Amino acid sequence: MRAVDLIEKKKQGNAHTAEELRFLIDGFTKGEIPDYQMSAWAMAVCFNGMTAEETALLTQYMAESGDQVDLSGLKNTVDKHSTGGVGDKTTLIVAPLVASLGGTVAKMSGRGLGHTGGTVDKLESIPGYQTALSMEEFLNLSQKHGMVVAGQSGDLAPADKKLYALRDVTATVASVPLIASSIMSKKIAAGAKSIVLDVKCGSGAFMKTAEDAKILAEAMVEIGTACGRKMAALITNMDLPLGSAIGNALEVEEAIAVLQGQGPEDLKEVCIALAAQMLSLCRKWSLAQAEAKVKEALQSGAAYAKFEEWITAQSGDLNAFLQQRKVPCRSHRVVAKESGYITAMDAEQIGIAAMLLGAGRAKKEDAIDYAAGIRLLKKTGEQVQKGESIAELFTASAEDFEGAERCFLNALTVGAQPPKILPLILDRIGGADE
Amino acid sequence: MRAVDLIEKKKQGNAHTAEELRFLIDGFTKGEIPDYQMSAWAMAVCFNGMTAEETALLTQYMAESGDQVDLSGLKNTVDKHSTGGVGDKTTLIVAPLVASLGGTVAKMSGRGLGHTGGTVDKLESIPGYQTALSMEEFLNLSQKHGMVVAGQSGDLAPADKKLYALRDVTATVASVPLIASSIMSKKIAAGAKSIVLDVKCGSGAFMKTAEDAKILAEAMVEIGTACGRKMAALITNMDLPLGSAIGNALEVEEAIAVLQGQGPEDLKEVCIALAAQMLSLCRKWSLAQAEAKVKEALQSGAAYAKFEEWITAQSGDLNAFLQQRKVPCRSHRVVAKESGYITAMDAEQIGIAAMLLGAGRAKKEDAIDYAAGIRLLKKTGEQVQKGESIAELFTASAEDFEGAERCFLNALTVGAQPPKILPLILDRIGGADE
Repeated sequence: MRAVDLIEKKKQGNAHTAEELRFLIDGFTKGEIPDYQMSAWAMAVCFNGMTAEETALLTQYMAESGDQVDLSGLKNTVDKHSTGGVGDKTTLIVAPLVASLGGTVAKMSGRGLGHTGGTVDKLESIPGYQTALSMEEFLNLSQKHGMVVAGQSGDLAPADKKLYALRDVTATVASVPLIASSIMSKKIAAGAKSIVLDVKCGSGAFMKTAEDAKILAEAMVEIGTACGRKMAALITNMDLPLGSAIGNALEVEEAIAVLQGQGPEDLKEVCIALAAQMLSLCRKWSLAQAEAKVKEALQSGAAYAKFEEWITAQSGDLNAFLQQRKVPCRSHRVVAKESGYITAMDAEQIGIAAMLLGAGRAKKEDAIDYAAGIRLLKKTGEQVQKGESIAELFTASAEDFEGAERCFLNALTVGAQPPKILPLILDRIGGADE
Repeated sequence: MRAVDLIEKKKQGNAHTAEELRFLIDGFTKGEIPDYQMSAWAMAVCFNGMTAEETALLTQYMAESGDQVDLSGLKNTVDKHSTGGVGDKTTLIVAPLVASLGGTVAKMSGRGLGHTGGTVDKLESIPGYQTALSMEEFLNLSQKHGMVVAGQSGDLAPADKKLYALRDVTATVASVPLIASSIMSKKIAAGAKSIVLDVKCGSGAFMKTAEDAKILAEAMVEIGTACGRKMAALITNMDLPLGSAIGNALEVEEAIAVLQGQGPEDLKEVCIALAAQMLSLCRKWSLAQAEAKVKEALQSGAAYAKFEEWITAQSGDLNAFLQQRKVPCRSHRVVAKESGYITAMDAEQIGIAAMLLGAGRAKKEDAIDYAAGIRLLKKTGEQVQKGESIAELFTASAEDFEGAERCFLNALTVGAQPPKILPLILDRIGGADE
């Protein structure tokens, strides 16, 4: 078999066999197929696509290219994946919520880069919290507490890592089968039996429209199902940030509020929907039943108790965190420049403003300022008066607030008429009650 | 400017600016743009094409990427390019024919690889013939004799060489703008004011149909015109080998016959058409006038006299060659296995049979057996009787005739009905009388 013939085959619009995809992925991972052939192949895929069967096989072979987490000894394993959003702290809420109701959430999470935050960074704002765990510790904590959230240990889907890095510099990112297989290869390697996807759409997301998000969600659900997983996906609106807090410690604080039955409504709504969907898959409950139990766990304090148990189990000092939050941080109020309705908030720009304050990394090696970030006082649809405070900016590391404020104000559109507000949960793929 | 953005632009189907193409070609030639980006770009071009303007600019920048031959001191310079065929010895005939009538043919030619022969190899079957010339010798001979045929001196269009090598292994060869710019970049760098293209189509050619050959020919004529050259192209039939001789010394022998007013009709017809077209461009004669003068030069011996003058000028010993040809070479007669009409001869397969006898190279470093080759005794359309000789195979180097004979017989199709024979010259692009 020769790589050049497989590129030609894809260029002609034909589907690969399992052997051909295995040859491509194995050869590329081992360095036997050079980057210049793989990038030409990826470009041909951008134009001609892949069948559902090809996409599932590609995913499987990328998942098998490195370490795979064996969660077979655990009950009711369920994972959640979000395609990345600004202010998305749902994992911090949903994981203990689901664990408090008998699901097992053994989760490996990433760090943030650019305008989106990473769960691991958020958790590291809690003094002492350990994200680097051995596989043995990871499995023990999952067994004992029904949940764990760690950084990636081992080398999950190295073929995907290598292919993604190549696609990033060859304009071959935008392809549904390539995006779907990239995300799913890591999820499949991560081992959970049930997987719920939170596919964001809107200005702050990779997929700008609900239609595109749906196509991606369907492709991923199809892949997971073909790989023997129980799958569901929600399409959620990321035209504006989720909740009011953007920035690591600010987001942990907001997550705690939701777990204590408070917090912003939009964040609560998405978390309840995700947790109910996860429990419906892993515990075989109806969606209505799962949703009732989730609401009860938030009200009763059971979810927050699981949160405390989890943070303590991973050596986090919650009291120290809450004490730190009382120390005032350098802050600045942003006021409205004109009166009217906020008609749009560009989530990506707001993410960048938070990054400029120190909450995120522009480059991989940048340090994080855990206290830095933004608290939104007004969101899309609300009326503001000229001079009224609309947001609070925080930083312990940035020299001044100027750049971040400019960036934040650029993200806002103010108009005379209230905007049409889209529902938060736009669609649901799979996972409906039978 | 970033290469990844230019790949994205081409992927979206947009046309590049001159600056963008300059950036791509210069960056790639210097090694600043890596192969994996260039191959992804080439694949995007395969899908989305290039405008005539882009193609001309790409050609120009590739031509400017290395040495350029300055023929401005010579009168009536004219070049001929064939897209490669089996048994194509037209340069050996056309160059002295045109030179004998006042055109200047200062030509750099290539060596053969695979099933097609190279003019330089053919000429080296003449004892003493020098193909490696300095630029000074090259220009002096052109000035003095109106012609020269040498191997490539200097580094013409290195950007094309590098891009072609990459396209060859990434399934991005088949793209009209990329093929056209590749061929034309070398022709533009070679410096002649007028260029006549012989675009072959059929089983032995890269372009299988006359329609595809015409599209390629039009693209090349358009490029050359945009680069300030006088252009014309003939589309010629390569469903079967041209003439009867395939193999280096055999082809020189056949070329001599044509120059002496004899030789096979098909070869003579193509040579007269090409030479007339070249002279029409470089001497501003009408095609009819040019054709009459060409026929006269063949009849009068003027063309053959120029051939002798040329070979002698490049240190070739024509008498020694003719003496060598009298020494019998190991040969084998191929006989028809059945009676009927020859309905098809696969030129590519016949080229491979000649290669197996030692006439060509499978790999670049292989040595050539100048005496080896095939003389066709019957061609497509002719009737054969079972047991009748249809070809003679020659070799001084191959162990036996078995593989070549099998390959040759596989190339033949014999049927009960005579086949439809296409005309030899299928179309003509540009260069018509005004």
